[in-house]
Amino acid sequence: MNQRQLDEYLDYLRFPSVSTDPAHKNDLVECAEWLAAKLRAMGLATVVHPTAGHPIVVAKNEHRPGRRTVMIYGHYDVQPADPLALWDSPPFEPRIADDYVFARGSADNKGQHFAHVLGIEETLRERGELPVNLILLVEGEEEIGSEHLEQFLATHRDELRCDLIAISDTGMVAKGQPTLSYGLRGVAAMELRVKGPASDLHSGIYGGAVMNPATALVRLLATLHDDEGRVAVSGFYDTVLPLEKWERDAWQQVPFGDADFLNVTGAPELFGEAGYTSLERTWARPTAEINGIGGGFQGVGSKTVLPSEAFAKLTFRLVPNQQPDDILAKVRAHLQARCPRGVRVEIDCGHSGEPYVTDPNSPSSMAARRALQQAFPGKDVALIREGGSIPIVNTFKRVLGVETLLLGLALPDCRAHAPNENFPVENFFAGVRLNRALLNELAHPTQ
Amino acid sequence: MNQRQLDEYLDYLRFPSVSTDPAHKNDLVECAEWLAAKLRAMGLATVVHPTAGHPIVVAKNEHRPGRRTVMIYGHYDVQPADPLALWDSPPFEPRIADDYVFARGSADNKGQHFAHVLGIEETLRERGELPVNLILLVEGEEEIGSEHLEQFLATHRDELRCDLIAISDTGMVAKGQPTLSYGLRGVAAMELRVKGPASDLHSGIYGGAVMNPATALVRLLATLHDDEGRVAVSGFYDTVLPLEKWERDAWQQVPFGDADFLNVTGAPELFGEAGYTSLERTWARPTAEINGIGGGFQGVGSKTVLPSEAFAKLTFRLVPNQQPDDILAKVRAHLQARCPRGVRVEIDCGHSGEPYVTDPNSPSSMAARRALQQAFPGKDVALIREGGSIPIVNTFKRVLGVETLLLGLALPDCRAHAPNENFPVENFFAGVRLNRALLNELAHPTQ
Repeated sequence: MNQRQLDEYLDYLRFPSVSTDPAHKNDLVECAEWLAAKLRAMGLATVVHPTAGHPIVVAKNEHRPGRRTVMIYGHYDVQPADPLALWDSPPFEPRIADDYVFARGSADNKGQHFAHVLGIEETLRERGELPVNLILLVEGEEEIGSEHLEQFLATHRDELRCDLIAISDTGMVAKGQPTLSYGLRGVAAMELRVKGPASDLHSGIYGGAVMNPATALVRLLATLHDDEGRVAVSGFYDTVLPLEKWERDAWQQVPFGDADFLNVTGAPELFGEAGYTSLERTWARPTAEINGIGGGFQGVGSKTVLPSEAFAKLTFRLVPNQQPDDILAKVRAHLQARCPRGVRVEIDCGHSGEPYVTDPNSPSSMAARRALQQAFPGKDVALIREGGSIPIVNTFKRVLGVETLLLGLALPDCRAHAPNENFPVENFFAGVRLNRALLNELAHPTQ
Repeated sequence: MNQRQLDEYLDYLRFPSVSTDPAHKNDLVECAEWLAAKLRAMGLATVVHPTAGHPIVVAKNEHRPGRRTVMIYGHYDVQPADPLALWDSPPFEPRIADDYVFARGSADNKGQHFAHVLGIEETLRERGELPVNLILLVEGEEEIGSEHLEQFLATHRDELRCDLIAISDTGMVAKGQPTLSYGLRGVAAMELRVKGPASDLHSGIYGGAVMNPATALVRLLATLHDDEGRVAVSGFYDTVLPLEKWERDAWQQVPFGDADFLNVTGAPELFGEAGYTSLERTWARPTAEINGIGGGFQGVGSKTVLPSEAFAKLTFRLVPNQQPDDILAKVRAHLQARCPRGVRVEIDCGHSGEPYVTDPNSPSSMAARRALQQAFPGKDVALIREGGSIPIVNTFKRVLGVETLLLGLALPDCRAHAPNENFPVENFFAGVRLNRALLNELAHPTQ
């Protein structure tokens, strides 16, 4: 273990770089500048590019003709930390316990891409150069849909031209089990606001005469699913690609099954679409989730109020070949057609990203599989998809025309997006090794 | 207008005596002591009785044999002020605009009972005595179900023995329209908590494999009503007394109809149980309302979280002869029987109060009607019921064996329990006149 490397990682975690919250705008700038200073000290030509949102950091070694060009992508922004009360220690004061690092961003994504940074640093120190032309791109808007990345890629298309992209922002199926992800779910976000009376009303004086917006909201949201857990929006499954037999067979071998889902989530029981395993439900089947719901009195005790409005924040996880715009239009039509009497429904569509799938047997994928086995010796690489979304994978394909390798380092119980997010110290150092092997393998990929 | 009386009223409103919030405990004590000092200065024998909750203030004149004993009741506690952002001025810094007083408690209930206090003061100053034996009882727990009042009444039954009780804590059907309320709805409160995963989960990684507690909550709450706005809990209407013909006829004359409901509430349209007018729906039909709902991400922007739990705060408004315990048991059974798969449901029952109805033609009611006409000359007294709940009316009947007169002074748009609560200055001074006439009339009631 290299204490200096670990200390730098912890320093990086101390920036509360919450991209969703405008109050943290300056924390993101400071975080980006800190990273840029580190990259410059390593000898990389580094630029912090301002955007209309949060800055993008781009670093390069000296590019030489005849070598492959590899982009490594990461994001320095993190999810909000609330509910704060559920953290065992402050989210931006990293703490190491039982060889895990606890902090917001420890796994998603600072720990994972900073391990690559330190792998590059080690190679540069030992060999004075890298085996590939490197482009390191670390953005600050991944958690809000990478709003300004596509425009940035288009504007800087020539300087960012590369042969392929590698990202560590996904998961391993078990501790010590090297994992290559060849697919991701997409995502489409929507916020729903049900408005009734002009202000909150006394539920005794007016209750019975007007529709309660919270009641209207629950009646509306209850139409999103059928009793069997399927999404009940007309046409929602029309373009879903069925799972192939080899995938279902391969996933039977993945050392993470229903018992693990139950254990990791702590849910009373599993529940999902009939006819699929939990892995299939989360990796290859679409969902409709309520991420937040609110309205009326939220405090301790009771308040006999008939709320003026109520809201819900929804996201839909999509699988190939669902298109976000198409799904959002179908859901909007579904909700508007079912708007209860006596209220108005306002719908705002938020960020979205397409689902992704690639070939796990391509030359680059095979190079990545060899690198993963060097970082985690002794086990075959698991070939999986993931339930989460990395929308920029499709952006890279569309704008730069290249495929992306997903070499995840987070564990299933890393609590990304939740209180007590964590990342094992050993995965962090495995990430450093992975970067060194990966750049070597990618320098000369063969089938 | 008496400026000194108005200033004292505004002083009284400055106490943030929010009984639902333990943080305000001392504000309630200070408010009670301020009131007691005022009553002592008027010459009334006054005691501030501590309870396990908030104190009860009791004041008496010198009681003489052969006179009727009248209790006037009020409550110095107020509803919470949130959402604070929706107030045009701070809720505990009273502001007068267009001859209305704006403050939390201006109408409910400080303005109404303090007018009685000042009426008593005027009579005492002018005549040196009151025409009745007076007991003034002002409690601090009305907004939390008068938790400790019943025990207090039982313990002090002898000192509190009286012939009848008068309360101004209800509404007038229109400005300048004297109003006697002969009925009230009851209330029964319940909090529902749906628990799923042990902590918030990433909705991409786990979405599809476990039931989302917010989804389970909306599916469960959507079963509370049918599509026509009736409560769909089995047996809910079993003991509801039908409206009598004279009531429906009398209420047709009330100068507050559907157009006024639409105007005052600002709702897009009215909605309620088929076959009833808005007055009938709010005064004589029971309801199930969601007072608050929450779960998952509440902040600005989006957070792709699958929440660990979600809650709802419910109240049921009851009409004669529904019993709170019976209704709560039926709702609990309804919800538990419909608990969606994959989550646990926890139900806590809160405060409750029975519905109330009395005879608007009894000798005491007739005396009250004459007093109302002296306070608001030129209009017949409207005979109404109210949609709100004053559970202690039933407590008085049960423990002290007496009926209660409800002589409301609040206007339909007073925004009790909501931001910008208000009370007209003219109603405040009408309340002072009402008290003087009422004590005279009640001294010698005749049919």
